[in-house]
Amino acid sequence: MGPGPSEIHPAVYRALASPVIGHLDPAYLEVVDRMAELLRPLFGTKNRLTNATPGTGTSGMEACVANLVGPGDAVLCCIHGYFGDRIRQMCERQEAEVTCIEEEWGKPTDPDKVEAALKQKRFKVITVVHAETSTGVQQPMDDIARLARQHGAMILLDTVTSLGGVEVKVDEWGIDAAYSCSQKCIGCPPGLSPVTFSERALEALKSRTTPVRSWYLDIQLLDGYWGAHGYHHTSSSTLNYGLFEALLLAHEEGIEQRFARHLKNHHAFEAGIEAMGMAMHVAAEHRLPLLNTVRIPEGVDDAALRQYLLKSFNLEIGGGLGALKGLVWRVGLMGHSSSPEKILLLLSALSVALAAQGVKTDLAEGQSAAMKVLQ
Amino acid sequence: MGPGPSEIHPAVYRALASPVIGHLDPAYLEVVDRMAELLRPLFGTKNRLTNATPGTGTSGMEACVANLVGPGDAVLCCIHGYFGDRIRQMCERQEAEVTCIEEEWGKPTDPDKVEAALKQKRFKVITVVHAETSTGVQQPMDDIARLARQHGAMILLDTVTSLGGVEVKVDEWGIDAAYSCSQKCIGCPPGLSPVTFSERALEALKSRTTPVRSWYLDIQLLDGYWGAHGYHHTSSSTLNYGLFEALLLAHEEGIEQRFARHLKNHHAFEAGIEAMGMAMHVAAEHRLPLLNTVRIPEGVDDAALRQYLLKSFNLEIGGGLGALKGLVWRVGLMGHSSSPEKILLLLSALSVALAAQGVKTDLAEGQSAAMKVLQ
Repeated sequence: MGPGPSEIHPAVYRALASPVIGHLDPAYLEVVDRMAELLRPLFGTKNRLTNATPGTGTSGMEACVANLVGPGDAVLCCIHGYFGDRIRQMCERQEAEVTCIEEEWGKPTDPDKVEAALKQKRFKVITVVHAETSTGVQQPMDDIARLARQHGAMILLDTVTSLGGVEVKVDEWGIDAAYSCSQKCIGCPPGLSPVTFSERALEALKSRTTPVRSWYLDIQLLDGYWGAHGYHHTSSSTLNYGLFEALLLAHEEGIEQRFARHLKNHHAFEAGIEAMGMAMHVAAEHRLPLLNTVRIPEGVDDAALRQYLLKSFNLEIGGGLGALKGLVWRVGLMGHSSSPEKILLLLSALSVALAAQGVKTDLAEGQSAAMKVLQ
Repeated sequence: MGPGPSEIHPAVYRALASPVIGHLDPAYLEVVDRMAELLRPLFGTKNRLTNATPGTGTSGMEACVANLVGPGDAVLCCIHGYFGDRIRQMCERQEAEVTCIEEEWGKPTDPDKVEAALKQKRFKVITVVHAETSTGVQQPMDDIARLARQHGAMILLDTVTSLGGVEVKVDEWGIDAAYSCSQKCIGCPPGLSPVTFSERALEALKSRTTPVRSWYLDIQLLDGYWGAHGYHHTSSSTLNYGLFEALLLAHEEGIEQRFARHLKNHHAFEAGIEAMGMAMHVAAEHRLPLLNTVRIPEGVDDAALRQYLLKSFNLEIGGGLGALKGLVWRVGLMGHSSSPEKILLLLSALSVALAAQGVKTDLAEGQSAAMKVLQ
């Protein structure tokens, strides 16, 4: 129940043990094609170029940055957490001219600041994190999307923690490149990164004057495999069968129903935490249902508590990253892990672990508040 | 029985279905540590920085190139097949000054040509493919290694098809960066790339004046996870458990015994092919035991024959790549796929598939010649 990997459905485990077949086998290329069909509704896109890069979510981040951003390109990085800053680092490695808008960790980027920046300078790309895994903030996208359109800037969007858990609207927002990961709300093991690129992004790529530095993650070369079925890399049938099965399960549940389940379970969890006398880090209107940051009560030994949960209950929650280290816990309610029984278990385990450090919480109130939401 | 992925041992399939755990879980970090211990003997190295990059073999190639090669660096690329040329493309994307030594596809690089090049210019890095998957050639390394030492050049070595199947001597040859893959002689599914870097390579990295363009494959950042157990990427426990199990199986068999098995099965296969009246593409002294290029007999429809094998016998062999397209078949005898029963099956299936195209071969002679080697 940390920031991922989330729990894996038994059907996905079975898929992982399927016989390995060749990356150019006609039967496997069908899976490659269908992967795109299953991912598009989650991204909210009709983009032809939609599939999964052969690496973790960070490989998808690098694929988006390395393809869209070149030397001297003006890039506006919206940073309100650890991953927004990771994108900035990648842009700088591509020798872009980077301008940053930084927000306190726990708040989203203010569209007014984006507007002010866009009025001062012409930007090729704006980078945005839709769901900041380090803070538990969900970035409202409508205003930033409108501003980007008005000023002719492309948007590069991190949906690592949002894809499959809340609505992502790549086409409606006019996103040009977005990436995610396999191991959070989609519920597959880590190792793959769903990505999607707009036709405008592909056009921009074709007019680049410098080659994409990465051969492995050059999206036009990857398209030569995904789209044209030519050899580029030895795609892992193991991981792709797992992702395929996880996506089938998501569609079987129904995309809308899946979002509703994640939201309801989040409301139950936050109600429970607050009724127990603890506090959520993010203001209610910006909370990400999938990644919940809980403020660590004063006087609690963070590392000792997380070790206690792991040793006594085989239960993992995340510590704070960067600016929030030691200040919050990160609780994932993603994919197969987003369930009433997990919430009850965690509230209960937290009360025991806190009691072991002499910190009293009202578990009965917490359970009752959570159950009111769940029923 | 193509150029990989090879067959997977049942124990590895079981490992792939192991419960997914977090990349920073203490129990998992033990696996990360032990991965290095199990890989070092295969690479023939004591290099501390030894582990597996989170991507296919091409991610390992890119990790080696992007870290060792920067803008303006003089690089000597030894090219005698498809993958040597892929390294060249990557070096050029890093803005290196590339000089090429090209050989006919089916022959190794001539050390005299390397010596001539080294006398003309000072090179920072020489790139070499130990086992060229596109041609079935094993590159003799002693002379090139000696020349590189004499002229103070680093060697970047591709061991994608050799690691775990024939001896690799990273320390003895003085290799500074080498990479491989998980799905060939090691016998794990694709998705990971074993790599090793020398201390000299790390020193060179620290004196770079430009940042490594790739954040995902920056070996110093990866070392921060493998060595210092800090967060960098969400390592796939699924694939790493598979690789771990495959490496345990290799050590259980015995490294020397494993090399001997691969060599003996190769000799049986080539004896069978030649006794059936067909020809190997590579001269006997340069044949790679693991990847066997068989010349396609005149008048045979290549694609139709491979489709026949796949449809009738669920048997995959590889077609020729690049300059050898339509001229050779590529037969992998790697890892769990390198066995007497596979050899007999393939000789038999080939004779049937050729007969279906009206080409007669002497299967009885082929079987008898193969069995003489195997007994």
